[in-house]
Amino acid sequence: MPELRKDPVVGRWVIMATERSRRPSDFVKSPEERKGGPCVFCAGMEHLTPPEVLSYRAAGTAPNQPGWRVRGVPNKFPALRIEGGAGRRGDGVYDLMNGIGAHEVVIETPEHDAGMADLESFQIEEVLWAYRDRALDLQRDERFRYVIIFKNHGVEAGASLEHPHSQLIALPILPLSVQQELRGASEYYQLKERCIFCDIVFQESRDGRRVVFENSSFIVACPFAARFPFELWIVPKAHGSHFEHATVADYRDFAAAIKASLSALKTALNDPPFNYIIHSAPIGEPRNKNYHWHMEITPALTKVAGFEVGTGFYINPVPPENAAEHLRQVIAQTAVIAPAKSAANFPNGPTS
Amino acid sequence: MPELRKDPVVGRWVIMATERSRRPSDFVKSPEERKGGPCVFCAGMEHLTPPEVLSYRAAGTAPNQPGWRVRGVPNKFPALRIEGGAGRRGDGVYDLMNGIGAHEVVIETPEHDAGMADLESFQIEEVLWAYRDRALDLQRDERFRYVIIFKNHGVEAGASLEHPHSQLIALPILPLSVQQELRGASEYYQLKERCIFCDIVFQESRDGRRVVFENSSFIVACPFAARFPFELWIVPKAHGSHFEHATVADYRDFAAAIKASLSALKTALNDPPFNYIIHSAPIGEPRNKNYHWHMEITPALTKVAGFEVGTGFYINPVPPENAAEHLRQVIAQTAVIAPAKSAANFPNGPTS
Repeated sequence: MPELRKDPVVGRWVIMATERSRRPSDFVKSPEERKGGPCVFCAGMEHLTPPEVLSYRAAGTAPNQPGWRVRGVPNKFPALRIEGGAGRRGDGVYDLMNGIGAHEVVIETPEHDAGMADLESFQIEEVLWAYRDRALDLQRDERFRYVIIFKNHGVEAGASLEHPHSQLIALPILPLSVQQELRGASEYYQLKERCIFCDIVFQESRDGRRVVFENSSFIVACPFAARFPFELWIVPKAHGSHFEHATVADYRDFAAAIKASLSALKTALNDPPFNYIIHSAPIGEPRNKNYHWHMEITPALTKVAGFEVGTGFYINPVPPENAAEHLRQVIAQTAVIAPAKSAANFPNGPTS
Repeated sequence: MPELRKDPVVGRWVIMATERSRRPSDFVKSPEERKGGPCVFCAGMEHLTPPEVLSYRAAGTAPNQPGWRVRGVPNKFPALRIEGGAGRRGDGVYDLMNGIGAHEVVIETPEHDAGMADLESFQIEEVLWAYRDRALDLQRDERFRYVIIFKNHGVEAGASLEHPHSQLIALPILPLSVQQELRGASEYYQLKERCIFCDIVFQESRDGRRVVFENSSFIVACPFAARFPFELWIVPKAHGSHFEHATVADYRDFAAAIKASLSALKTALNDPPFNYIIHSAPIGEPRNKNYHWHMEITPALTKVAGFEVGTGFYINPVPPENAAEHLRQVIAQTAVIAPAKSAANFPNGPTS
C-alpha cells in the first residue's frame, strides 16, 4: 500500500510509492519513452485497459467495445489504491495515512492523432461532462476530499502516452495549492465580503489588456502575475465554487473557451506542450461564496528548474499583456467562431 | 524596469521582465544552449564579467585578475535592477512594485571542469563564506527583505553555464515558499513552544532510517515527505534562524556535510543534475526561536510537470528510507572522511 505523507512544516502531502518503488539504478539514465506497439487507448483496443467506468457511445454498442466517443477507465498503474481505510496516524512529529484514492483516465476521442485543440467544441463539451460525471461519482465515496482533474499534453509536459487523454485523481487530503487558494480566497472574503475571483473577472473585463477571449459565460485571460509565458486562466463570469455543479450552458461555453484557448496556443506556438488543471472547491463541501472554480493552462515553454519549485518564485520573460495581445491577433486571424452545436443535443450523450 | 507582481489569491510574487521581453516566436523552438567560445567564468577571462564584488585570492594578486579561488560578480543579465526605489503600488485588486534587487554569481573555482562534488571540503567552505559575506553586504541595503542562495547543476536543473557557480538573488519581497515555511514554523511554535526543525533533527537522529550522514554540527537526511527521489536536507543540529549568523565551526562542518552529500549523489546516480537552495530567515530580521535555517538538495531525476507545479502535490517513486540506505552504503564504500584542513586557516581567506 502506498503512503500519503505530510511535510510537517508547510503541510504538503506527497504520495510515497512504498510498494513498487524504483531502484537507484533506474535513475542513472532517464527512463526511455515507451514506443511502438498498439495504443491501448485507441478504438478496438478496449480489452487492453481495465473495464470502463464511463462511456458516451453510439446506441446499440456494448461497454468495452468500439462505438464510444469519450471513455473513462481506471489507470492501469494507479498511484493510489482504491481499497482500504484512511488509516490516519502519527509517527512522532509526522503525519501519514494509507495511500488510498482513485486514479482514472478519460480518453477524449477514439482518434489517436486528434489533439484537444483539433476537437470540435461539442467533443470537448463531452469530455467536460465526463469529468463532471466521474467527479460526482467519486464524491459519493466519503473517504475522498478532493478530485484533481488535469491534462498533460506532450512529453515535455509529462504525458507518457500520445493518445489524447486527461486524468482524475481522487484524494483523501487537500493538495497544498488548494489549501493555499482556499486560504487566500477566504482571507480576502473576510476583508472585503467579495469573491477575489469575481473581482478579478470584473477588473480584467473592464481593463481588457490581458483578455484573450470572451463568451457569454467565460473569460479567458493571461493572469496579472503569470508564472509562465502564455499562461491562461479560463474563469466563469458568474460565481460558482464547484466545477461539478456548473450548468448545461456553462459546460457548452466552457468548451468553446477551451477550444479557442488551445487553438490559439497551438497556432501561436507550434503545438506547445501544456498542462491544464481544473481548480475547484473540495468535493462534497457545501457551495461557498469565496472560492470560484476555474481552469489554469500552463504551456511548458521554459524549463521549470528546482529553483522555481523550491522557492515558489518565478521569472516570466513574457508579460501577460504581450502574450494576450498576440493570442487575440491569432484568434482574430483564424476566426474562431461560436460552436454550431452542443453535445447536450446528442442522443445517448451525458445529458440525455 | 522589470516589475514584481503579486498573485492576489496565494500571494506568490513573480518577476515580470517587461523590458527585454521575449517574442512569441522565441518559443516556437526551444532556445538552444549557448555553446562554444571562451568560458566567461574561467581564470584569465575576468574582463568578460562585470567587476568583482568579492574574491578570495592569492596574496599580491589584483582584483579582476587571475589568482582568485572564489569570485563573486554581478550577473551580466540580471533578472532585477539594483537602482531605484521599491515603488510599491496597487492596480485595483493587484499589487506590484518595481523590479529592484541584486542578482549575483559566485564562481566556486577557477577550474572549469571541477563540479562541486569534486572540490575539497575546504574549497566548499570558502564558497559558503562567500555566500555569507555577500548576504551580509546585501543586508545593508534596507530595500531588501530576502536573499535566495542557490545552485543549479546540469542543464536539466536549469544551469545555463557549465563552469561551477552559484547564484544570489536579493529581493524586496518574500518568496512564497519562505512565507509558507515561516508561517508553518510559527504555528508549530505557538502550539508546542518548540522549533519544528529541532524536533525533526531529534526524531531523525534517534530513528536513523532516513539519516545519510552526520558530523558534530550537521545531520544529512532524506526528508520524511520527500517530493523527489534522493532529495536531501542538511540541517544544523543546534538551533539558528539565519545562515549568515552561523559560526566558523558551523561553516566547516556544513562544508563537510555538503561534500559528503554531493559525492554520494554523484557516485550513486552518475553525476545527476541537481539544485540546492539555502532556506534561511529573512535578512535583517532579528534571530528567532521558531525558524531553523537549512539546505535542501533536490536531484532532477524525474520530470517536474505542470501537474506538480500546479497542485503542489508530488508522487515520489523512491521512499526516503530506501534512498538513505543506498546513500549510506555509497558513503561507507567510498570512505568519505572528515576534512583535513579548514579554509579558516588560510591566508587571505574570508576569516583572516
